[in-house]
Amino acid sequence: MGNTRKIIMDMDPGHDDAMALIVAASSPKLEIMAITTVSGNAPVEKTTRNARRICDLIHLQQVPIYKGASRPLLRAPEAAETIHGESGLDGPELSDNPEKTVEKEHAVDAIIHIIEHSESPVTLVPTGPLTNIALALIKEPGIAGNIEEIVLMGGGTFGNWTPAAEFNIYADAEAAKVVFESGISIAMFGLDVTHQALITPEIQQRISTSRHPAGRFVFDLLDFFMEAYKNTFRFEGAPLHDVCTVAYLIDSGMFTMEHVHVGIETRGEYTYGATAVDLLHVTGTEPNVWFAGSLQVDRLWKLIKEAVDSYEK
Amino acid sequence: MGNTRKIIMDMDPGHDDAMALIVAASSPKLEIMAITTVSGNAPVEKTTRNARRICDLIHLQQVPIYKGASRPLLRAPEAAETIHGESGLDGPELSDNPEKTVEKEHAVDAIIHIIEHSESPVTLVPTGPLTNIALALIKEPGIAGNIEEIVLMGGGTFGNWTPAAEFNIYADAEAAKVVFESGISIAMFGLDVTHQALITPEIQQRISTSRHPAGRFVFDLLDFFMEAYKNTFRFEGAPLHDVCTVAYLIDSGMFTMEHVHVGIETRGEYTYGATAVDLLHVTGTEPNVWFAGSLQVDRLWKLIKEAVDSYEK
Amino acid sequence: MGNTRKIIMDMDPGHDDAMALIVAASSPKLEIMAITTVSGNAPVEKTTRNARRICDLIHLQQVPIYKGASRPLLRAPEAAETIHGESGLDGPELSDNPEKTVEKEHAVDAIIHIIEHSESPVTLVPTGPLTNIALALIKEPGIAGNIEEIVLMGGGTFGNWTPAAEFNIYADAEAAKVVFESGISIAMFGLDVTHQALITPEIQQRISTSRHPAGRFVFDLLDFFMEAYKNTFRFEGAPLHDVCTVAYLIDSGMFTMEHVHVGIETRGEYTYGATAVDLLHVTGTEPNVWFAGSLQVDRLWKLIKEAVDSYEK
Amino acid sequence: MGNTRKIIMDMDPGHDDAMALIVAASSPKLEIMAITTVSGNAPVEKTTRNARRICDLIHLQQVPIYKGASRPLLRAPEAAETIHGESGLDGPELSDNPEKTVEKEHAVDAIIHIIEHSESPVTLVPTGPLTNIALALIKEPGIAGNIEEIVLMGGGTFGNWTPAAEFNIYADAEAAKVVFESGISIAMFGLDVTHQALITPEIQQRISTSRHPAGRFVFDLLDFFMEAYKNTFRFEGAPLHDVCTVAYLIDSGMFTMEHVHVGIETRGEYTYGATAVDLLHVTGTEPNVWFAGSLQVDRLWKLIKEAVDSYEK
Ligand SMILES: [Ca+2]
Ligand SMILES: [Ca+2]
Ligand SMILES: [Ca+2]
Ligand SMILES: [Ca+2]
Repeated sequence: MGNTRKIIMDMDPGHDDAMALIVAASSPKLEIMAITTVSGNAPVEKTTRNARRICDLIHLQQVPIYKGASRPLLRAPEAAETIHGESGLDGPELSDNPEKTVEKEHAVDAIIHIIEHSESPVTLVPTGPLTNIALALIKEPGIAGNIEEIVLMGGGTFGNWTPAAEFNIYADAEAAKVVFESGISIAMFGLDVTHQALITPEIQQRISTSRHPAGRFVFDLLDFFMEAYKNTFRFEGAPLHDVCTVAYLIDSGMFTMEHVHVGIETRGEYTYGATAVDLLHVTGTEPNVWFAGSLQVDRLWKLIKEAVDSYEK
Repeated sequence: MGNTRKIIMDMDPGHDDAMALIVAASSPKLEIMAITTVSGNAPVEKTTRNARRICDLIHLQQVPIYKGASRPLLRAPEAAETIHGESGLDGPELSDNPEKTVEKEHAVDAIIHIIEHSESPVTLVPTGPLTNIALALIKEPGIAGNIEEIVLMGGGTFGNWTPAAEFNIYADAEAAKVVFESGISIAMFGLDVTHQALITPEIQQRISTSRHPAGRFVFDLLDFFMEAYKNTFRFEGAPLHDVCTVAYLIDSGMFTMEHVHVGIETRGEYTYGATAVDLLHVTGTEPNVWFAGSLQVDRLWKLIKEAVDSYEK
Repeated sequence: MGNTRKIIMDMDPGHDDAMALIVAASSPKLEIMAITTVSGNAPVEKTTRNARRICDLIHLQQVPIYKGASRPLLRAPEAAETIHGESGLDGPELSDNPEKTVEKEHAVDAIIHIIEHSESPVTLVPTGPLTNIALALIKEPGIAGNIEEIVLMGGGTFGNWTPAAEFNIYADAEAAKVVFESGISIAMFGLDVTHQALITPEIQQRISTSRHPAGRFVFDLLDFFMEAYKNTFRFEGAPLHDVCTVAYLIDSGMFTMEHVHVGIETRGEYTYGATAVDLLHVTGTEPNVWFAGSLQVDRLWKLIKEAVDSYEK
Repeated sequence: MGNTRKIIMDMDPGHDDAMALIVAASSPKLEIMAITTVSGNAPVEKTTRNARRICDLIHLQQVPIYKGASRPLLRAPEAAETIHGESGLDGPELSDNPEKTVEKEHAVDAIIHIIEHSESPVTLVPTGPLTNIALALIKEPGIAGNIEEIVLMGGGTFGNWTPAAEFNIYADAEAAKVVFESGISIAMFGLDVTHQALITPEIQQRISTSRHPAGRFVFDLLDFFMEAYKNTFRFEGAPLHDVCTVAYLIDSGMFTMEHVHVGIETRGEYTYGATAVDLLHVTGTEPNVWFAGSLQVDRLWKLIKEAVDSYEK
């Protein structure tokens, strides 16, 4: 495997999670050790079934899927049906009985065991609420020593699910607090940068020309996603949030990153789940996060198109 | 006075408060009923002396000054010396013994009495922490009925004093909560719009050509202010926050305003003093604030230049 | 006046406030400088009218009454009608048009002026929510220097209005926070001690034998109060909370007092308005309160009976 | 096993945990399925070693021990060395290398598996912080259906670790929140009742007359515990908190229990970890806890003495 980077993709697919997985699986630079699922955009039963569907689509049979937490640490679960539909991945035609199977081990234990048994450090790539990652760190704090980095989608200097909070952090802010205070190196792709990765019909056309079923899948998936953003947020274009994490792992040069302190708000009356990003360096607190501020967006579309096209061969 | 608008300017001068007062006093559209001072950029003794100095400079003898609260409702006072210097208005040459005097009545009582005795509704223009306004509303809730609007500088979707909070709101978030929950019509000029009103050396030259002492004063004041923003925040250019409120009262058309709900955070661990601005209308809460989103900045500079020049005549 | 102690009684009468005033007015040891009223057991209009009624009853014409705050600092007002009835003082026959008048000055200003102009330090005796006292301290922090002590009814190691909070503190915990953090010497009579001052029918008989109308008034007032405690809290006997403050000023020896730290909770989800009393000295925080732990209850009944009887002469 | 009750003892021994285990193991009414350990009075390595030592002492070889969480959900771990000494069980002579071994499975997984595989419902008996129980409920919410009851030591209407909070709840209030909001039937033995179970030298003599090593062990353990309470809290007598849970399972009639709502405070400034016990039924919230209010203490000492004596045979 040489210079590949070992990753665990922890996700709640989800349209943009699906794109992230499609791109990651196509890259020779990444070795996906496992897909772990979590409650988020939809209940974990649904996000797990969606992960299986995507694996079927791109013939990703060798990567194990582990089902994870069905609820946040403290809060009641909250799904994002307005954005991802009833299935959590509405839009493309989806099989009711995916062939890909799910392992018996709980995702939290899989994360622990994979990290403990890996000869080289593992990178975690969470693109849903951070419940699984937090539970693994609480259950076996020692795994921190063999985690290279946590490259996550979440947060930002503004919110989308509430005025102050982004969905992934809001859905389990206590889990986010555990992760952000863990001392592990974190690269954070929040709304500031993911809202620069706006899918428009023109971009949709450009990246989904492949005649492989993956091309059709991507096209339909983006159709639904753009419509949902239009209806819910009045956005022209849909931000492809989660794919930024994988893009960073493949070609980090397309992002500008700043080392800052980020605090996770769990007590606010109006700001539960906010990420306080110290961009002006006014708090005097030691940085704990590499924060993605901007993105060369054409480089991103090129990367995604190449990934989608790669399945044709 | 015909169509003039009756205003009380509640301030903590402060460089941008000074500019706001200079512009307001020059406008035939505004009748300044009183200047009330508050602890904020500097302790209230200093902000009151600064208000007197500005009145001397622009011969504003007929407007009474009332000294207000020396401390926030609940918190210990916090000055902003890094931005406004030791005097609260460093830069221009300032007399130690201004001629302009201060009334005996407390600012809170003056606000109450002026509003109670005014035949037409009064507009409050707070450009410091909201302590005086909150105290007046707590002491005599009935005054709300004769307040036309509160046009204030404060808050925003991001912070400057902490990652999540702007100085005026952070300095007394409980007072802000009282004001924002009062049911009175509020126009809010937060960092989103005031950071568009960036003074650069070129703008400084353009607006302070007057040979009247006011011209020199403005030039020197902006010198210090730009230097402070460069040193503290690494900004090229200094945002002339407070003047936006007065500009709105004179020429509201230069701003785009959106009707939204704004909640004041008083309980957060990382977000005390944040203003949760529901720009995406995701909370389902009734709007309580007209939020200034953008600004035609050339129209602002023109207005300020005319105001400064007007003193020459 | 020699060795009398100058006091301001800040109250929301209220059955036990009424008893406190009747006892205080009878004592040669106390000089009541003013009665100030506050929203609490009932809206301030009603508590003020009740104060006037009590003054009529005991011919307390020389003491001025000032009406105070109609709302807490931050919260919406909350009355205690289950305990004190619709008038705030149900039970005795009450005149609709008391003769005693109310001064024009606001209670907050009266408190400030009386303290500022008194040649010797003044003791504040709040037996309602602490709104007036907090507002006075915020408006003129300098008055702290001429306040001898604040002898208040409020708080305790357990609650009555919520599981964790006593009514007076719960009704305006932010005001309580201002007072308890002011550095002024505080004697606190909370539920721990006031629940030892239980009025039973036998005690009621004992203390209200006077043929003066005050005797009848006290008897009827206690009738209603005992019934209310039975219905609301299933108590056999009604705690005569507020009178403990005045009893302490007249005969402090009947109480055991401990010097402890008390923190006021304003942020809790279940504990808003709780008083964290550090009886075990586990916090390591400097004491700020003399906490009344126990009471020689017979000494209290004797004091009250003598006070009620004194009106006969 | 007939009418025995299946229990899992989740503990952080701890002097009173040790007593609880000694009593439970002696009772034919209880079948201890497992001992699970948690960080609390001491780090989990130490509490696990202490559990092994007690098993050696009372020859409890057939009950498996599982090591659990080394840290609370969100907070940094906090030990109680002032009360339990450096080992977590100072006082008696303790072997450095207990014979009793620890299973490989994590306590959280053991709890899940035992409950999932038990034919009849299992009762959990936590006498330390609730971290393991909360983690099990988060990881596999379905186990709630096969839990008969959670009989726990924790909380109270007053505190010991802070003025408002008891140690077990304070040490992991978020875990407590998960447990108390789980909908599972809870019997709560808090400080209100455990402070009635005061060990004095006279009681110590009475219950540890056995010539079995367990008798000596109990005697020495109580020596240290009484001394610690004297030094830390100035108590004459040491409350044998944890043993109340086991006493209830063996002879519930010695306790009076009330069905009330208990809320767990996780946000307070002074009250983190407080349990808001609605004894006056003022909140209108549905009861979720059977709260132990009082105790026939002689019945408790008798039970303990019989348990200690039983090892002699
Ligand atoms: Ca996602
Ligand atoms: Ca200002
Ligand atoms: Ca009262
Ligand atoms: Ca224990």
